[in-house]
Amino acid sequence: MPAHDVEQAEISSKKPAFERLISAATALFWTKGVRAVGVDEIATAAGISKPTLYRKFASKDDLVAYCADRMAQEEQRRLAEIAARHADSPLEHIRAIITLASDALADAQGFGWFASNLAVELREENHNAKAICLRQKAHLRQELLNAATAASLTAPGLLADGLLLLLEGGSSSWHTFECGSPTSRISAVADRLITAHYPAPDAV
Amino acid sequence: MPAHDVEQAEISSKKPAFERLISAATALFWTKGVRAVGVDEIATAAGISKPTLYRKFASKDDLVAYCADRMAQEEQRRLAEIAARHADSPLEHIRAIITLASDALADAQGFGWFASNLAVELREENHNAKAICLRQKAHLRQELLNAATAASLTAPGLLADGLLLLLEGGSSSWHTFECGSPTSRISAVADRLITAHYPAPDAV
Repeated sequence: MPAHDVEQAEISSKKPAFERLISAATALFWTKGVRAVGVDEIATAAGISKPTLYRKFASKDDLVAYCADRMAQEEQRRLAEIAARHADSPLEHIRAIITLASDALADAQGFGWFASNLAVELREENHNAKAICLRQKAHLRQELLNAATAASLTAPGLLADGLLLLLEGGSSSWHTFECGSPTSRISAVADRLITAHYPAPDAV
Repeated sequence: MPAHDVEQAEISSKKPAFERLISAATALFWTKGVRAVGVDEIATAAGISKPTLYRKFASKDDLVAYCADRMAQEEQRRLAEIAARHADSPLEHIRAIITLASDALADAQGFGWFASNLAVELREENHNAKAICLRQKAHLRQELLNAATAASLTAPGLLADGLLLLLEGGSSSWHTFECGSPTSRISAVADRLITAHYPAPDAV
């Protein structure tokens, strides 16, 4: 989901306080980084008091984990939609996953992937949000593997990991080259890589 | 350079104070993240006083930028060595660049790439260290492009960006899957991608 979907401009006071809190926190964590944002700034952006924030979440870490989990669930929902739509065309399924990710990273206001940034920022092994990031990436990896296997491509595990590396690299590169090249070339590179995993003609 | 090269155990008191400071700061920034580490912790780890630290660097940001620049210079030195060694074999040159990066990321204590982590952590566009990270990545990209062009591979710009995405993805994935797969598969994926850029037989 591009960052502007959740940016402050949309945090309308018509939303319930809890939703305003999650929207404001997600937008701030994404654009400024989790370590750079304090609870005072989040409460102000959400238009709620700090005691209200602490009635919902015992700590900032719990709030980070909740936001990460919400984002992970949204990604899983989109991946499930894509899988259902392309159940009969696994090659199109793979390309749709790549498109989903590269479209999100093509957003100049996107600041890379929420979970990928978070995994870099949180070095504590036992942080709840870190475990959520790992589960989210493992889920994406499994979806790529399932589709590559269903498409009868060669070395599907290697292809799934290669595509995951490209997508992760697109997020990381966003922070140096922004949404221009190389991030903008994820789909073109993925196409070459997928083609490199086609079965040999005599094996078809 | 793997993190253990610069970890605290090696910060011998025999080193001059300035070198102890840079080694300690680099190791702490790398393993804990730049935002999680304060000047007090760095001074203690380096065995110097805080006033001594501030005599060398006006601010923590300046120290971060110096460490990033030192790392970038070390990478450029290694890339220049590799370029000289493989001047007559551009395909081997590309593979040597991939090996340099993937070997560093294969280190369980490596915490991904210093510059890649830093670019994610520092969201301020005008941070000195951010500019150093961008220059470092642009340099690596140019080295890959030069070698791909010299090797007469097809679409050398696309290949260079694809390889850069794989390497960046390896750093990013380190923070979720650690040094295991997919990070461990950078070389194998790169080989497939390079092969996909070989000229067609009738074009040779």
